[in-house]
Amino acid sequence: MALYVQKFGGTSVGSIERIRAVAEKVKRFREDGHQIVVVVSAMSGETNRLLGLANDISEEPNPRELDVLVSTGEQVTISLLSMALQSIGVEAVSYTGAQVCIHTDTAHTRARISHIDTDRLRRDLDAGCVTVVAGFQGMDENGEITTLGRGGSDTTAVALAAALKADECQIYTDVDGVYTTDPRVCAHARRLDAITVEEMLELASLGSKVLQIRSVEFAGKYNVPLRVLSSFEEGPGTLIVAEEEHLSTHNMEAPQISGIAFSVNEAQITLRKMPDVPGIASRILGPIAQANIEVDMIIQNIAIEDERTDFTFTVSKQDFRQACRLLEEQVVPTLGGELRGNERIAKVSLVGVGMRSHAGVADQMFRTLAAEGINIRMVSTSEIKISVIIDEKFTELAVRALHTAFGLDAEPREV
Amino acid sequence: MALYVQKFGGTSVGSIERIRAVAEKVKRFREDGHQIVVVVSAMSGETNRLLGLANDISEEPNPRELDVLVSTGEQVTISLLSMALQSIGVEAVSYTGAQVCIHTDTAHTRARISHIDTDRLRRDLDAGCVTVVAGFQGMDENGEITTLGRGGSDTTAVALAAALKADECQIYTDVDGVYTTDPRVCAHARRLDAITVEEMLELASLGSKVLQIRSVEFAGKYNVPLRVLSSFEEGPGTLIVAEEEHLSTHNMEAPQISGIAFSVNEAQITLRKMPDVPGIASRILGPIAQANIEVDMIIQNIAIEDERTDFTFTVSKQDFRQACRLLEEQVVPTLGGELRGNERIAKVSLVGVGMRSHAGVADQMFRTLAAEGINIRMVSTSEIKISVIIDEKFTELAVRALHTAFGLDAEPREV
Repeated sequence: MALYVQKFGGTSVGSIERIRAVAEKVKRFREDGHQIVVVVSAMSGETNRLLGLANDISEEPNPRELDVLVSTGEQVTISLLSMALQSIGVEAVSYTGAQVCIHTDTAHTRARISHIDTDRLRRDLDAGCVTVVAGFQGMDENGEITTLGRGGSDTTAVALAAALKADECQIYTDVDGVYTTDPRVCAHARRLDAITVEEMLELASLGSKVLQIRSVEFAGKYNVPLRVLSSFEEGPGTLIVAEEEHLSTHNMEAPQISGIAFSVNEAQITLRKMPDVPGIASRILGPIAQANIEVDMIIQNIAIEDERTDFTFTVSKQDFRQACRLLEEQVVPTLGGELRGNERIAKVSLVGVGMRSHAGVADQMFRTLAAEGINIRMVSTSEIKISVIIDEKFTELAVRALHTAFGLDAEPREV
Repeated sequence: MALYVQKFGGTSVGSIERIRAVAEKVKRFREDGHQIVVVVSAMSGETNRLLGLANDISEEPNPRELDVLVSTGEQVTISLLSMALQSIGVEAVSYTGAQVCIHTDTAHTRARISHIDTDRLRRDLDAGCVTVVAGFQGMDENGEITTLGRGGSDTTAVALAAALKADECQIYTDVDGVYTTDPRVCAHARRLDAITVEEMLELASLGSKVLQIRSVEFAGKYNVPLRVLSSFEEGPGTLIVAEEEHLSTHNMEAPQISGIAFSVNEAQITLRKMPDVPGIASRILGPIAQANIEVDMIIQNIAIEDERTDFTFTVSKQDFRQACRLLEEQVVPTLGGELRGNERIAKVSLVGVGMRSHAGVADQMFRTLAAEGINIRMVSTSEIKISVIIDEKFTELAVRALHTAFGLDAEPREV
């Protein structure tokens, strides 16, 4: 007998039929003798409908009232799923975030969970009852309704799994696991049986939006085994585990690379011939940070001639124009230099804890891209990741070439 | 400065535009220096939408889960109205039934309010803040969400007015007050400036569905001045008051009758030639009560010949066939008698505390009907009401004739 926390997102509970299907799935786990906590999101479209009402009423809706409003979305789902379970003979009870005592700080619309009282859930579970908990929401110390921000239902599930010391936190989505890369770009993309938390964080932040970053961090911090699997198909999904465990499940020929992420959502900004003096980076990026623009890669090479250097960084495409304007207005007039920008770039990243113990990953990456005639504009590395910036038009070609070169291609299926 | 509890029903908050209009109305009261507690229902149609989802999921939805579900309807409205108030510069804060501590018993879907903690509301009101409270819902001693049953928002408003000792509880509806009779039947129907709680109870139970009976009872019990008025038009509405106060506001020529109610929703059942022995009434009505069929009028006249009597009662039309079947199966075989039924009847009632001190009301009623050639099939009286059963086809004629005969017609308006 195991204790599972199972999270179903908005698409998985998007209609009466789908809620019924979730109930059938939960029933099978109960029949196998497991204890189940279900965490659900609002039915797909509902949160946007509610936000639409708020925006119709007010240009700047009050965050406290927004939380009162949107938290109704999950409240509807928990009651409907509980009814669906009861109607097929499974004992079930629903709880809002406040009722099940998911305590958060007071930061409305982006609250963080502080602690969870599990007494009530334990009593229900020991009595053989499925507990259905509203994701995404909690209660602050004043009894105010709070929400955790978009995607917060994953965080709720992981936090509950940690508090209950669950055997596994299962995140049901519309994909059947984490893939070596986007199957829409590379037909040979393969589902991973397992991946480490670190790798998952790199893949998530690079655009593989299977799981919310916060929930993965949470799972790593509290050592919660996290599994991504499909709501609609049977299958083992992908297990996201602490590193040591992951490696022990692999044979000696562990792959160097777990996956390839890519993003075409960034733009590159370069300031050429900047004075190479201390504090230059913060003087360039200060105005950018003040405008709340997030910077991803930052590259500054050593100065070669006349004490001048080129400073390059990337921002998301939507912030590109504003960032350029800020630099033109606030940086170039005092520091000099030439502003160059490029919106037609892509970032392609190899991710894998295996690359730590294997030399030559970067070399193999560069050779593979060169063989395809793809020029590398920027390089940035971390312990388990190598990212390159290339021309946007080469994105798919680069991903497919690297996928094959690093042995990630799926075995051809027998027809 | 006064403290008002203002309740707006589903139609009054049925769209973004109407919620804005409610906010403007509340703002005017605030600008006059009054303290305001607003109680709102779910947006019109929302409760039915939610119940539809529940019925799609389950044939017999669990009452606890139903309450979790439908209580979201009011929660959406409180947040939207609070935002609307804030957006026009009125400080406002929303509360669910649980947050504002409306304590109820544990009877899901038809809970009764036990008590209300008003500390939080008082603090907000004293700070100049409009409090927007979800009607229709509360919390039981275990922290479970409960609802008060349909129309419970009126009850919430009156209960809050009682707990806060408000100067007036104002129920905003889609009519501009309580009328002497239904204006669709009688063009001369007149809005009443004031009416007593007792009269209102008789009128409400007879089909003038302006207010929920429970909220009127509540207002009478706790001596809360209750006013019915229009959400959409300006006007004083109708004040519902304790009797003494009401009478003191009338001049010496107080009318005998306040209003005329009617219902075509009843059917008559007669058992002829029943044995006139003790216990006969309960032996006839026992099977009816056991089937949860509500009986309205009951008439048994004295036995005249051969110790046999006729026993007549009325039930709602929808229960008529079932009631007849029960009697045929369970009563006639053992007690004998002949079963006679009539679905084509109407009940017309004169209501007024004034009739207590005026003899001859019944006589005038009978003479008026006789003059129109309307035969009276049954008569039943209480201290402030006389009801007659007549043929359904004479309903409108009877109402109009009585309205004129008892001096209720509005003064002709100048054109």
